[in-house]
Amino acid sequence: MLEQKLKAIIRDVPNFPKDGIIFKDITPILSYPEVCNAIVNDLVLNAKKLEVEVIAGIEARGFLFGPLIAQKMGIPFVPLRKSGKLPYKSYKVDYNLEYGTASLEMHEDAFTKNARVLIHDDLLATGGTALAAAALVQNIGQVVGYSFLIDLEFLSGKQLLSSVTSSIYSIVKY
Amino acid sequence: MLEQKLKAIIRDVPNFPKDGIIFKDITPILSYPEVCNAIVNDLVLNAKKLEVEVIAGIEARGFLFGPLIAQKMGIPFVPLRKSGKLPYKSYKVDYNLEYGTASLEMHEDAFTKNARVLIHDDLLATGGTALAAAALVQNIGQVVGYSFLIDLEFLSGKQLLSSVTSSIYSIVKY
Repeated sequence: MLEQKLKAIIRDVPNFPKDGIIFKDITPILSYPEVCNAIVNDLVLNAKKLEVEVIAGIEARGFLFGPLIAQKMGIPFVPLRKSGKLPYKSYKVDYNLEYGTASLEMHEDAFTKNARVLIHDDLLATGGTALAAAALVQNIGQVVGYSFLIDLEFLSGKQLLSSVTSSIYSIVKY
Repeated sequence: MLEQKLKAIIRDVPNFPKDGIIFKDITPILSYPEVCNAIVNDLVLNAKKLEVEVIAGIEARGFLFGPLIAQKMGIPFVPLRKSGKLPYKSYKVDYNLEYGTASLEMHEDAFTKNARVLIHDDLLATGGTALAAAALVQNIGQVVGYSFLIDLEFLSGKQLLSSVTSSIYSIVKY
């Protein structure tokens, strides 16, 4: 089963990025091409059910699998980037982090009006970034789903995102 | 021809990130799945000639096509990340930018010893970041080539990188 296989590969790194946090490191997965392929197939299957037209990936780890999903489906990929990285006219949303604030941006011509967009990232924690991503996408399109490799369920991100869509998919749950 | 097709899609954004610079915006390419597929096929063809065993991509735009190349070849992808992003034991290299300095990091167990690594990024400018990437990779592996979507030839990045390898490939030249 894919979830068990991934749990065996994902690396726990204690005290990163700060004391008391156990970080889920997905980089070892990238050393196993056949496992990456299984992940892409799984996430594509989910996206096809939702009739997704665009994959929007959150910088930077959402860029690792987002383009693979989009390419396999033959649809566009749109990068949602940190502040100041996108060169063209962009929408911007500010949001709160545990300490301080952050911003996410998307090009104004990222996709056609009312497009059915799936937002992808590697990991769902509290959901703050993913919620901000939805606000960006909704400037021109509709968020028809989220997909993540990992859902840290004890942080209740899914509840926060339920106001956006009920289609919140993840392969690995902790 | 792929180069001409890409030149028609790549967007010139004047005065980004600062006055007097004309930024080459590759994000519109991501809206054309068939063009992305042609790019991946082209870069895979180059990498196969070099008997590449690992693709190392530079954060963040090197993550857009790097995993696609690796996945198509059935080989590992390794992210070279900005300072403080990688959770596990990492090699680090500091390098100079036009203003100030920056750092790039790679996990110490990113790939097996002496692996044949291709470094990928979207764009070659002065080559400073790509040269730093080579220093990282050479801690455990060999750099057998570079690949870029774009080479800004007037900035002479290729000359800077010639001390690392003579295999420096790009699809679009300006």
